[in-house]
Amino acid sequence: MREPVHIVGTYLSPYVRKVLVVLHLKGIAYDIDPIIPFMGDDRFSRLSPLRRIPVLLDGEIVLADSSVICQYLEDRHPEPAVYPRDVAQRARARWLEEFADTRMGEVFIWRLFNQLVIRRFVWREQTDEALVARTLAEDVPAILDYLESEVPPAGYLFGDLSIADVSVACFFRNAAMARFSIDAARWPRSAAFVDRVLAGESFQQLKPFEERLMRTPIPEHRAVLASMQAPVARETYATTTPRRGVMQI
Amino acid sequence: MREPVHIVGTYLSPYVRKVLVVLHLKGIAYDIDPIIPFMGDDRFSRLSPLRRIPVLLDGEIVLADSSVICQYLEDRHPEPAVYPRDVAQRARARWLEEFADTRMGEVFIWRLFNQLVIRRFVWREQTDEALVARTLAEDVPAILDYLESEVPPAGYLFGDLSIADVSVACFFRNAAMARFSIDAARWPRSAAFVDRVLAGESFQQLKPFEERLMRTPIPEHRAVLASMQAPVARETYATTTPRRGVMQI
Repeated sequence: MREPVHIVGTYLSPYVRKVLVVLHLKGIAYDIDPIIPFMGDDRFSRLSPLRRIPVLLDGEIVLADSSVICQYLEDRHPEPAVYPRDVAQRARARWLEEFADTRMGEVFIWRLFNQLVIRRFVWREQTDEALVARTLAEDVPAILDYLESEVPPAGYLFGDLSIADVSVACFFRNAAMARFSIDAARWPRSAAFVDRVLAGESFQQLKPFEERLMRTPIPEHRAVLASMQAPVARETYATTTPRRGVMQI
Repeated sequence: MREPVHIVGTYLSPYVRKVLVVLHLKGIAYDIDPIIPFMGDDRFSRLSPLRRIPVLLDGEIVLADSSVICQYLEDRHPEPAVYPRDVAQRARARWLEEFADTRMGEVFIWRLFNQLVIRRFVWREQTDEALVARTLAEDVPAILDYLESEVPPAGYLFGDLSIADVSVACFFRNAAMARFSIDAARWPRSAAFVDRVLAGESFQQLKPFEERLMRTPIPEHRAVLASMQAPVARETYATTTPRRGVMQI
């Protein structure tokens, strides 16, 4: 592994956050080109065929999916482990990561965060309030009911903190940016679990950057991060104007 | 591992096919409950929160995502390996599996196969010919251009046959069922590669079941498979009438 490894993608993405948390847990040095996917240029398309973030570049190796990146970091740098050692638990952890990345991504990012943050502040469009209401009334409770049946009353899902805890918690940072928080009366285990995971140093060290970017116009993200001494990389794959419909998933 | 392991999901799914091929390559005994996702009942929902197939049941362990299942099979039963041993190649193989499962799934299953097979024969609805035409003119060529740049002129992607070859090839069985074949003049490497992978014994042994199911009404699938001596499991999670809109992804 050639440190610092290079990460392409903004701190505001839950998938980038997952990778940055794993890098921090493993003590791997990185720098970051904090682009937003719909600002990515044609070089970005070649790097990331689905135009997803994050992308990891480690020397000649290019990986453009957060789950693949985290497993690569574990294979390359096994200690401290972020996947359970027990084979059955490891499989269950990967399942919960997949559940978070697809279903929680669909609901918390593509419905809530997209409607309440991206549409308003990037595209200057109205929020579809009916969609948001339906999402909050139906989809979010179904997810939280499932999480409530899975998460433990204390500690983490599989003993030590693992990829499963990290993957699930990442989405609640974006949910909070869209002013959503878990109703602790209805889902007490989930609310306490998410608070517990997000309180960890690996999440906390990212919070100042996330909070600042939320208040900063996209063209100023790099400069503001640099002024905060974030590990901003020199190279950029971003255009100056956003393009619609460029993400394939 | 408690053999036979139990697989829930039809032979007609590319994701089920991937798992059945890996089970065959590893020589793991299995039986199968060949349900179609939109025929799944409420027990199926509890088993597979995203209502995806395949589901693997191995004793108490339940896994409901094909990539998680394949990695579990590798962890539990490492020889013969279906993931490359080299860490960088292993990561690239997982990336290609992810590309196949998401992007090729979107295009070959949710556009072509859904429009040309599922809508016609399950829902008795018309094909959206404009969508099919656009998919064939734009999305499919983009995928094949990418594959053409990745696949080798001979042999497999990473030396021995791996999860990457299997994942990619699986979708072309469904494409063939929708009467699509790769234009070998335009994408010669991809056409030859897919033929080479699909010619393997692990794919060939499934073909009689797939071909027969394609000509069989869904309610008769189990009986027909049993008559062909497929390893059909006794338990079933299926209703007798299809339900729309029950898949979450």
